[in-house]
Amino acid sequence: MSLPSAAAAAPADRPGDLFFAEIREQPEALRRLLEHEAEYGEIARTIAGRRPSLIRLVGHGSSDNAATYGVYAFGLLPRMTAVRDSISLRIYYGAELDFSASVVVALSQSGRTPDVVDYVRSAQELGAFTVAVTNEPAAELGEAADAVLPLAAGPENAVAATKTYLNQLAALALLAGGIAGRGAEVAENLRHTADLISTSLTRLEAEARPIAASFAYVGRMYAIGRGLEFATAREVALKLTETCRIAAEPLTATDLAHGPVAALDSLFPVWTIASNDESLPAVIEGASRVRAAGATVVASGSAADEIGAAQYLLKVPAAPSPLLAPLLSVVPGQLFAGALAQAKGLDPDRPAGLTKVTIAR
Amino acid sequence: MSLPSAAAAAPADRPGDLFFAEIREQPEALRRLLEHEAEYGEIARTIAGRRPSLIRLVGHGSSDNAATYGVYAFGLLPRMTAVRDSISLRIYYGAELDFSASVVVALSQSGRTPDVVDYVRSAQELGAFTVAVTNEPAAELGEAADAVLPLAAGPENAVAATKTYLNQLAALALLAGGIAGRGAEVAENLRHTADLISTSLTRLEAEARPIAASFAYVGRMYAIGRGLEFATAREVALKLTETCRIAAEPLTATDLAHGPVAALDSLFPVWTIASNDESLPAVIEGASRVRAAGATVVASGSAADEIGAAQYLLKVPAAPSPLLAPLLSVVPGQLFAGALAQAKGLDPDRPAGLTKVTIAR
Repeated sequence: MSLPSAAAAAPADRPGDLFFAEIREQPEALRRLLEHEAEYGEIARTIAGRRPSLIRLVGHGSSDNAATYGVYAFGLLPRMTAVRDSISLRIYYGAELDFSASVVVALSQSGRTPDVVDYVRSAQELGAFTVAVTNEPAAELGEAADAVLPLAAGPENAVAATKTYLNQLAALALLAGGIAGRGAEVAENLRHTADLISTSLTRLEAEARPIAASFAYVGRMYAIGRGLEFATAREVALKLTETCRIAAEPLTATDLAHGPVAALDSLFPVWTIASNDESLPAVIEGASRVRAAGATVVASGSAADEIGAAQYLLKVPAAPSPLLAPLLSVVPGQLFAGALAQAKGLDPDRPAGLTKVTIAR
Repeated sequence: MSLPSAAAAAPADRPGDLFFAEIREQPEALRRLLEHEAEYGEIARTIAGRRPSLIRLVGHGSSDNAATYGVYAFGLLPRMTAVRDSISLRIYYGAELDFSASVVVALSQSGRTPDVVDYVRSAQELGAFTVAVTNEPAAELGEAADAVLPLAAGPENAVAATKTYLNQLAALALLAGGIAGRGAEVAENLRHTADLISTSLTRLEAEARPIAASFAYVGRMYAIGRGLEFATAREVALKLTETCRIAAEPLTATDLAHGPVAALDSLFPVWTIASNDESLPAVIEGASRVRAAGATVVASGSAADEIGAAQYLLKVPAAPSPLLAPLLSVVPGQLFAGALAQAKGLDPDRPAGLTKVTIAR
């Protein structure tokens, strides 16, 4: 008689166990990605050789948030213009754009997002070189693209993405670094980042839980960041929305002032991401506007304590390079979302109405 | 003894009078823009002559929402790739990108948004041809840019933008049309669109008011659209946030399914924009997901009655061309936001914490 595999058969003990296990697994998942450094280097050399005029990034949900980060990774490392491209312009309206000098980087955890797969096929027909970055290299997206790069995060079982998001950021940094001839340096910094996440996770979880408990009746939040950390604002807002059922909107610290600040009050707190880079003054100013409107401020990131307006701090270690700060900054938001979902009696592993693979068009 | 000018001296009678007056003035404002058709044509020819590889659109708030529309206007008319560019990558991080084959179109009602002005100066130094599209051509932005195009909307006195947003959409369509050699056709269609708005405004306001009254206790909403109408979703969400203090998040109908649908319930209604184009099936599917989650659906746009899931309809006339649909689709959202603000006892002319010219960085 053979015993079933414990890993495959054991149900999660409590709501959130999967989600927290995957958050805690992130350093290990990052290290698994780095085992593929050579593959990333090879594709990076191919891209560099094509001298593209534009990097077109596509994805939905967390993958689209990672694409927001990719704009900075490609802009700051190989100094290439990268954009979150419009999927619908091509897929719905059939716009005949010039893709011949473009490289497409398509992001999908499952490798099965239908309009991302359609976009890649279509971009290829128009002459683009297409790269799939996916946790499931054997799925449709990898088959459709000219090249496929693995996320190597391991199976992600909680519906809300955590480790695949972090590995997408790392994948984009590694690819952009490789194009700039700095792949080894980025890989080394990513290894160091994995260590920094490892050593701060337990403390951050212990700090996030009591803060989360006091947010149990919150229905509306903003998440603000600027520059590199706008990707983090988007991802934290998405985690809060999907796991905690909070209407959480991501805003740049600047766009906050262009209208949305008017909606704030004492029951409408704001999550702030502050890292030590050139955008920090804009975030400090944004947080001050939030406080002036009477709203509670939670400050996260390596420069959390620079946010004088903050009532709550979740400080992370400084990243080995400013470009990698978002890998550390997102972790308090993940932990807070998981803890708040549990405090509200929700299951962050299986939010109502969602499935792991989204086939919506 | 001279009498003061009534127009200059009379204070607004009631909260919202300015906001509604400017919504109603939109057909006239559009016609004023069209008096500048020749100037738009001239700059369009200059841009076409440069054969740019990329159109970089920048703006904040409503101007950024108009930029979302610009991606489609440039993609569908002259078949040029246009993107909402990252301001911070250049302004905060000083990324040395290749701007030599780029045209910048900078959008600012006031012509004074600091980081948009900085971006234009910086893009120019890097070799871009820069165009300011602004309601105040004599302000800094117009001075900084290589060319300036007037919005000609007339003074906008309500803090929340309405007629300048509509004129920004028209300006982008006119410029993109001119580059494609179709400026006269677009101008003619814009004139027709102005007439269609004129003839439907009174009815739409009468229909929007009773619906708005029943939303007086709503604190959270999504606004969903797809393709061309995602700009409208963003702009309606911003109006609801700044004038009604609702946490209103714009989402593509597709991204709704990638997480945010999990937050919906019967107290979390969704504003839907449905136009008769290739993206309509995605919007219909998105609205069905919303209903399945128990949330109320308001359907607006020319295909509002195709949204079987809708409890409320605000149907607008079909635009003379699909590209111009967003100029009509946004009007019910503006009227609803104004009426809801009044129903909540708020002043849509002067939302708390906002000023007309946003100088935040």
